[in-house]
Amino acid sequence: MNYCSNCGSQVVLRTPFGDDRPRYICDVCHTTHYQNPRVVTGCIPQWKDQILLCRRAIEPRYGLWTLPAGFLENGETTAQAAARETLEEANARVVIDAPFSLLDIPRINQVYVMFRARLLDLDYAPGSESLEVELFREAEIPWDTLAFPAIEQTLVLFFEDRRLGSFRMHNETVWRQPGEPRR
Amino acid sequence: MNYCSNCGSQVVLRTPFGDDRPRYICDVCHTTHYQNPRVVTGCIPQWKDQILLCRRAIEPRYGLWTLPAGFLENGETTAQAAARETLEEANARVVIDAPFSLLDIPRINQVYVMFRARLLDLDYAPGSESLEVELFREAEIPWDTLAFPAIEQTLVLFFEDRRLGSFRMHNETVWRQPGEPRR
Repeated sequence: MNYCSNCGSQVVLRTPFGDDRPRYICDVCHTTHYQNPRVVTGCIPQWKDQILLCRRAIEPRYGLWTLPAGFLENGETTAQAAARETLEEANARVVIDAPFSLLDIPRINQVYVMFRARLLDLDYAPGSESLEVELFREAEIPWDTLAFPAIEQTLVLFFEDRRLGSFRMHNETVWRQPGEPRR
Repeated sequence: MNYCSNCGSQVVLRTPFGDDRPRYICDVCHTTHYQNPRVVTGCIPQWKDQILLCRRAIEPRYGLWTLPAGFLENGETTAQAAARETLEEANARVVIDAPFSLLDIPRINQVYVMFRARLLDLDYAPGSESLEVELFREAEIPWDTLAFPAIEQTLVLFFEDRRLGSFRMHNETVWRQPGEPRR
């Protein structure tokens, strides 16, 4: 941030009085510009024992597989956003069930909220941001070509819970970077 | 938003090609400025059958009671932020347990993430943003002078679950506005 989005003057990076971290401050119109993490929300669309993945047609991570997910927009709920992303990326209609994972990625200032969901029909197709959309059984998941560690972590937790016969809410931090080898 | 925070030119509000909602766009440096909801995170600090509330020393909702909570900052996890806010507002140390409520407030572009937590000791005191900090039994909760509907909703769900003997994760939308009478 270089300029004040309110008045166009140059901003300075300074810790405001009573605050404990530096903020971009405009000394002309006296606006403090806070910068905060963004929410990514999506779902695990289930059809019997299969789940729906999308192969990305956009950067970052072009050509790799992911669950339908994207940035939460102003004016919508996390569950609405998860259903919207599934419609946009996979042309698929889902019923959103319970939230399943809340994953913090402090390295890139993101919070993932992933829901369990059920596909309403098999009438899905790649949206403009996907190359392919496909149903996978657990044994068929393309673990080595998943786009994001948060998606992998969600899928690992999902199949663990499914094996145990009950789903619970998970809260974890994602430490691995995309492309970094798994342990 | 009036000016580009990158180059200082005037921005225009326009739907970018391939997008479906208007964004602030700078036609000089070609930056699209996305605006997204912010995350508020906090906790329900428990001590035996009591929970800790803070009376606000700041606007909005000066003088009213709330759970310790505040905006998630860049570089921290939601659980870290919940513990930090509790230390700042109540000088209290907590162990953060599971996430308890994920509340969407699309009207004001906020998502609340509230955790269950346990107070580690009784050595608490008002921080600079609080007038008072006090432990309350369920029958003593000041329902009529709570600061925010999301906090009230979280407390209602918490005491319901406690009565049932098991806590689960809740995802709801907050429709009521602060100060609007309860049904």
